[in-house]
Amino acid sequence: MVVNELRKDYIIDRWVVIASHRRKRPSDFIEKHPEEGRYSTCPFCPGNEHLTPPASLVYLVEGDGKVRKDRDMNGERHKNWIIRCFPNLYPAFSPVEPKIMPNIQGGYRYIHLGALGYHEVLVESPNHDEHPGVARIGQLIHVINALKDRTAFLTTKDFIRYVSIFRNHGASAGASLSHAHMQIIAMPMVPRIVSEEFVASKKYYKDNDRCIFCDIISEEQKSERLIYEDGAFIIFAPWASISPFEFWIFPKRHQSSILDLKDNEVKGFAEVLRLSLGGLRSLLNDPPYNFGFHMMPKEYYHWHVEVYPALSIWAGFEKSTGIYINVVPPEEAAKYLREKLESEKGALIY
Amino acid sequence: MVVNELRKDYIIDRWVVIASHRRKRPSDFIEKHPEEGRYSTCPFCPGNEHLTPPASLVYLVEGDGKVRKDRDMNGERHKNWIIRCFPNLYPAFSPVEPKIMPNIQGGYRYIHLGALGYHEVLVESPNHDEHPGVARIGQLIHVINALKDRTAFLTTKDFIRYVSIFRNHGASAGASLSHAHMQIIAMPMVPRIVSEEFVASKKYYKDNDRCIFCDIISEEQKSERLIYEDGAFIIFAPWASISPFEFWIFPKRHQSSILDLKDNEVKGFAEVLRLSLGGLRSLLNDPPYNFGFHMMPKEYYHWHVEVYPALSIWAGFEKSTGIYINVVPPEEAAKYLREKLESEKGALIY
Repeated sequence: MVVNELRKDYIIDRWVVIASHRRKRPSDFIEKHPEEGRYSTCPFCPGNEHLTPPASLVYLVEGDGKVRKDRDMNGERHKNWIIRCFPNLYPAFSPVEPKIMPNIQGGYRYIHLGALGYHEVLVESPNHDEHPGVARIGQLIHVINALKDRTAFLTTKDFIRYVSIFRNHGASAGASLSHAHMQIIAMPMVPRIVSEEFVASKKYYKDNDRCIFCDIISEEQKSERLIYEDGAFIIFAPWASISPFEFWIFPKRHQSSILDLKDNEVKGFAEVLRLSLGGLRSLLNDPPYNFGFHMMPKEYYHWHVEVYPALSIWAGFEKSTGIYINVVPPEEAAKYLREKLESEKGALIY
Repeated sequence: MVVNELRKDYIIDRWVVIASHRRKRPSDFIEKHPEEGRYSTCPFCPGNEHLTPPASLVYLVEGDGKVRKDRDMNGERHKNWIIRCFPNLYPAFSPVEPKIMPNIQGGYRYIHLGALGYHEVLVESPNHDEHPGVARIGQLIHVINALKDRTAFLTTKDFIRYVSIFRNHGASAGASLSHAHMQIIAMPMVPRIVSEEFVASKKYYKDNDRCIFCDIISEEQKSERLIYEDGAFIIFAPWASISPFEFWIFPKRHQSSILDLKDNEVKGFAEVLRLSLGGLRSLLNDPPYNFGFHMMPKEYYHWHVEVYPALSIWAGFEKSTGIYINVVPPEEAAKYLREKLESEKGALIY
């Protein structure tokens, strides 16, 4: 009997059992996924703008082909947008006037805060199915620029401590609508996972005068967990992957947030998003997945995207211990994904 | 617009958005749940003992009605058991001989351990569907006694630092087999969630000469989150519930693990398990759920069970931030559950 391995994340206190004698192949994860609630009328499709709140940002294409940025005003809705961003109808976090702030009494064991902030939806394309694993690079460049625009705006609010960008794909991964979209939540606290990374990276920077993530990148570059790299980005399966086929995308240049992306890097990021999510899609027949950006506008932090294919259920053990069980060792996941990404290269459309 | 509330757990660094303007009623959570993989031959049903490993513990009823404990030996399988416990065929943790321990090299950023330990299944009844929300109290007393027996055995192993007992009910909550069963994992480390509670409760005990959980119990006893109490146990919806209709069960007497349960307390615990899980079942039409025991054999800890109905999907936001969103405020959950538990009282069968 071979014993499994318990691995700890590079930085945070998160452990996973790599259950290699439950070892599975990609084909074991391919299943018919339940169809998303596909509205007869999709509220995110062009023509249905009145079903969602006024846009906080739209990208419009002018007659000369140039992109113009605007927002909806006076109850009117822009048509012919190529990117559309608006407040979530059911926000988890929302901005309120100070005068109607709830009477929050903190202290002792019953600590709470108002969930002050913003919760927005970013529709990635007028085309219902143009999600990042199949999208044109030109469209993904608009998506990333719009994420930068909204992040820049939300970061200026003085009660905002963190901006989270995430994506849910597939009904079983929590996507209640199937039209290609991401969500942006700006909130009044730094969430635990990022805060743990942040505290560790700050200490490491002060002790070593180097970024901990830059060092992890150089180590993983030489490891069997490497999936893909080009001049500007690197993708690898993390050492303590908690999900089967999990991968992380890092810019190689040390930068703390997507706000630091230069135009050529935006294009490079569009390419690796398309390649990696397209590779995942092709490997596992369009599986459900989640991803989240980790970023902090501080010099010792290094932004990245963590992609979690939603292929296992976090059940009683995970919920009561905080320890995960992953049946696909990251070294194997990387081998499969590496091949798929290589073969996706020819399929990019600009 | 009313702002939502961000709440922190009593002790650990876990935050949840109580999204009260997404407020939902119990009926919104009732849905047809996909049928568990119901084998034509259930490997946990009587007569199929050869489909699972030899039992590490069986409870047998003798001619005189007394319960005798035994285990399977020499490849033979006991029949006519009322409780049966055996190694999981696909263990996450397993015992190995020192001589075949993997060559684990810890240190620096790539920390790992052998997943040394035990992973067992406890079949709660010969009756396929006799799960704790419907079981006879007499049968649940056997279940709890068997959990005590296995915990006592596993705790003696010198490489074991923690024993986790958990239950998954329903396919969407991770139950791959529907026959009533729990799982027991004994592992070489204290998991993060319990460790955080443990460190805090130790400090509190030293500072205040009282148990932090005992104090939480007295506070929740007077709160609108109280669901049920009798002389020996209390059930409440925790302040920072991360799942809709979440509830926690505590013994009122300060005790660190189920090993401290006296016989009359075993019966009392059987009753509150039956009442609370039966109430949940009746409120939400047999919803999927998970529960986990938290226990540490140390004087300043106070064991309890945390029950998580599996009614929401943890998606991109939860996975990348560690913050949860719960659409049912615990004060409302408690109100509904309180009524149901009251009406379940007449339905107990001994």
